[in-house]
Amino acid sequence: MIRWPDTRLQTLFGIDHPIVQGGMICNSGAKLAAAVSNAGGLGLIGAGSMRPDLFRDQIRKARGLTSRPFGVNIPLLYPHSPECVGIALEEGVRIVFTSAGSPKKVIGPLKEAGCVVVHVVAHPDLAVKCEQAGCDAVVCEGFEAGGHNGREEITTLVLVPECVRAVSVPVIAAGGIATGAQVAAMLALGAAGVQIGSRFAVTQESSGHAAFKQAVVAAGPGDTHLVLKAHVPVRLLRNAFRDRIAQMEARGAAREELEAELGHGRARRGMLDGDLDEGELEIGQVAGLIDDIPTVGEVMTRLLEDCERAIVRLTGGRADGAPAG
Amino acid sequence: MIRWPDTRLQTLFGIDHPIVQGGMICNSGAKLAAAVSNAGGLGLIGAGSMRPDLFRDQIRKARGLTSRPFGVNIPLLYPHSPECVGIALEEGVRIVFTSAGSPKKVIGPLKEAGCVVVHVVAHPDLAVKCEQAGCDAVVCEGFEAGGHNGREEITTLVLVPECVRAVSVPVIAAGGIATGAQVAAMLALGAAGVQIGSRFAVTQESSGHAAFKQAVVAAGPGDTHLVLKAHVPVRLLRNAFRDRIAQMEARGAAREELEAELGHGRARRGMLDGDLDEGELEIGQVAGLIDDIPTVGEVMTRLLEDCERAIVRLTGGRADGAPAG
Repeated sequence: MIRWPDTRLQTLFGIDHPIVQGGMICNSGAKLAAAVSNAGGLGLIGAGSMRPDLFRDQIRKARGLTSRPFGVNIPLLYPHSPECVGIALEEGVRIVFTSAGSPKKVIGPLKEAGCVVVHVVAHPDLAVKCEQAGCDAVVCEGFEAGGHNGREEITTLVLVPECVRAVSVPVIAAGGIATGAQVAAMLALGAAGVQIGSRFAVTQESSGHAAFKQAVVAAGPGDTHLVLKAHVPVRLLRNAFRDRIAQMEARGAAREELEAELGHGRARRGMLDGDLDEGELEIGQVAGLIDDIPTVGEVMTRLLEDCERAIVRLTGGRADGAPAG
Repeated sequence: MIRWPDTRLQTLFGIDHPIVQGGMICNSGAKLAAAVSNAGGLGLIGAGSMRPDLFRDQIRKARGLTSRPFGVNIPLLYPHSPECVGIALEEGVRIVFTSAGSPKKVIGPLKEAGCVVVHVVAHPDLAVKCEQAGCDAVVCEGFEAGGHNGREEITTLVLVPECVRAVSVPVIAAGGIATGAQVAAMLALGAAGVQIGSRFAVTQESSGHAAFKQAVVAAGPGDTHLVLKAHVPVRLLRNAFRDRIAQMEARGAAREELEAELGHGRARRGMLDGDLDEGELEIGQVAGLIDDIPTVGEVMTRLLEDCERAIVRLTGGRADGAPAG
């Protein structure tokens, strides 16, 4: 059994393993979040693609599926974001991850209610602002992450050490992590733990469409790209829609033209309805390392075993610090 | 003293530490390469920005500065590249790194002469081709690396595990590595060692202009960007020239227009002549973690100590595998 070198996240969230399942759109409902929490990690219900009533329903459903701590992720850029924050509080959620905006807008009532508050950042300057605002931890998410992404294109390998030296609160590394060796690498950089999206999106318990999961399994290295960089950068799996957007960008298409082509509901179309050609398929660059659709329990077992193996490899001995046998 | 978990590169190159100084343009002459080799790593003379006669001269100069093994890096895309390969062989160099092209073109005579041959790749498929062609190792260089870069934008954190599982020869991780904790992270991913460019470019012994080194020290997180992505992707420090190129790209400028603006000698102008506004300043994203201009010996000491600390942190014990004290 792995002995974690850092136990700050375990204490902060009341969990066994410093592995957070990222709140995603279209993939992270009650079933996924509860499965991750039941496996000893921290599951998050992603509010991003949910209307407020569905979000409330999913929180209640998760309560029925696990007695372990779980949380929510609320992107702060939508008109209904404040309503979702209110729902989380009403429903007794006490672990709230926020993203895509400033945590200052919402941190007051969350902290008053006794919540642990964590914000997602893509630049060390924002990590510092989060710490100053009172966040208990920061998720530092690199360029390789799926879906919406920072403008500075700082990769996880560079961003994590930058944030570790910039703040005192625990740094949760995110973007490009799907294997236990990658978890060990993040701990070596000084991260307290990791947030994993894509690997959990491609599990039995994820709410994504089976065709979307299969498309990720079929994807090879280099098959995702960041597009709409000048507007709202988003990492997508290559398909007809993404290629068209990339071509429009290459010829310098205006923002309005790109937004018209994007339209509404592309993410739902791709990831919930399974339209692999015309939907938006948000997934991380690590898709090239994802080759199957296991259960969450199986993913967690692999992560722990592979992380322990990597630590053993580093010491030439045993992960618990005992001499080489 | 650190006990390296992997000794394949030490054996392959005859060195003490699995740390290769990347062959760069304008920065890696005899003085830098010899200093790195004298410190127990592997120094490389970068042929990229040298005319053949200067390249020969630098090899001879390095021989006078170190009795330890050193090597060369020869980009294979220039008209004089074959001549440089011939010079390296004539001058008795037996460690040859190649990049920017296919190693198949040159590997025959190099292997016949008894050389260790290593090629730089940015995609696992190319790593496989290098292994099949007979390369002794591969440098797997991610999106965060300075200077010329792959088109697929695969980051080091994703590329290294992809390459480790694709080939049997040692994988040397590159791109985004300037600290010992980052070295430990790469070893956790299964890399045999690392190649470091930017951190060695900003040392006393590097041949870059003092103003260039100072500009890197002053740079903050997110101050480098990859430009010319559709043509010859290159990561540059932000300055007037880079911003102009980025603006041209945003409006969809044609290749010819970009090439005219680029012109010739921009890299030399920036990195050797110290023109910080109109020169090309090639440096990695890790510039944000580089804050001083130490000697190579000091850099190496920090790398080893910091790597050992990171390994200790992972085990909660000692880096040599003995029990926690």
